[in-house]
Amino acid sequence: MTLTVALQPLTAACFAAFGDVIECAGQPLSINQGQTERYHALSLPQVAGEAASIGLSIFRNLQASTLPLQIDMLERHPQGSQSFIPMDGQAFVIVVALPLDDRQPDEAQVCAFLSNGQQGITYARGVWHHPLITLEAPSNFLVVDRIGTGHNCDIHQLSQPCLIRVETAVPVAN
Amino acid sequence: MTLTVALQPLTAACFAAFGDVIECAGQPLSINQGQTERYHALSLPQVAGEAASIGLSIFRNLQASTLPLQIDMLERHPQGSQSFIPMDGQAFVIVVALPLDDRQPDEAQVCAFLSNGQQGITYARGVWHHPLITLEAPSNFLVVDRIGTGHNCDIHQLSQPCLIRVETAVPVAN
Repeated sequence: MTLTVALQPLTAACFAAFGDVIECAGQPLSINQGQTERYHALSLPQVAGEAASIGLSIFRNLQASTLPLQIDMLERHPQGSQSFIPMDGQAFVIVVALPLDDRQPDEAQVCAFLSNGQQGITYARGVWHHPLITLEAPSNFLVVDRIGTGHNCDIHQLSQPCLIRVETAVPVAN
Repeated sequence: MTLTVALQPLTAACFAAFGDVIECAGQPLSINQGQTERYHALSLPQVAGEAASIGLSIFRNLQASTLPLQIDMLERHPQGSQSFIPMDGQAFVIVVALPLDDRQPDEAQVCAFLSNGQQGITYARGVWHHPLITLEAPSNFLVVDRIGTGHNCDIHQLSQPCLIRVETAVPVAN
């Protein structure tokens, strides 16, 4: 059996249980003599563990996915948050899940979101998520995450495949 | 009198005295079953001071500059680095200066660089630089810098204007 999850537009409200949406929202600060709007402190990276720091990396995704898309695993980083910001305004797919307990995700609560390309995201520390899914390739993302040693990745194989699909509008009978 | 500075292509080697170039360079790590290249730890943000952290913000620049461009000030952030990453692959101009002493920049050592749009930069803590200069507007940048209270911006008015111009190729006599 396959679980089906409908892709939904990414909004801060929908994503709040999983982390932050990094986008121009809310009231900006006016800086640089009014030439620049600063959307301030949209996300604060989290890092734990000794001799660890926050670093900037680039992920270049080499393979584009198409929808519907079947996934079979999720991962989490117990020692730090992880942020992804598209570097070419490209849309991308975010798959996350709420926890069932402290060891595994709740497979009945998988959610899938579509960034509009002007939105980045932060997975809060320990949030179950699927590795980067892009719709274009090659595709570059700035990544802000923990740089350090020690165990920082748990992997969970789903008990059944999960199909991420575009929501189909239901025809309205007249 | 006006000091003239030629815009040069941004490279990690040229920019090393000022901070990091955030770009796909060097040997990446292969992750996500070979689907993604990770250009790892390209820049490590710096933060000092109590109750301060690193945060992600977006700067939306509302005014595009044209070249040649005259500048009359530089600033620095004594308590933290500051990173700028273009969110739409857009080119931008970076103006920096080496220090003359611990209080002011060396106006004879102003440098100007042009990002190719796939390159972000980090100003190391305390590096003198000009506020964001873009060639397109509106134009969004991810900014990674210190979130906290306390004094973190020094401003220096240049003793003479500085003109940033595109290098003109010198005709070769045949």
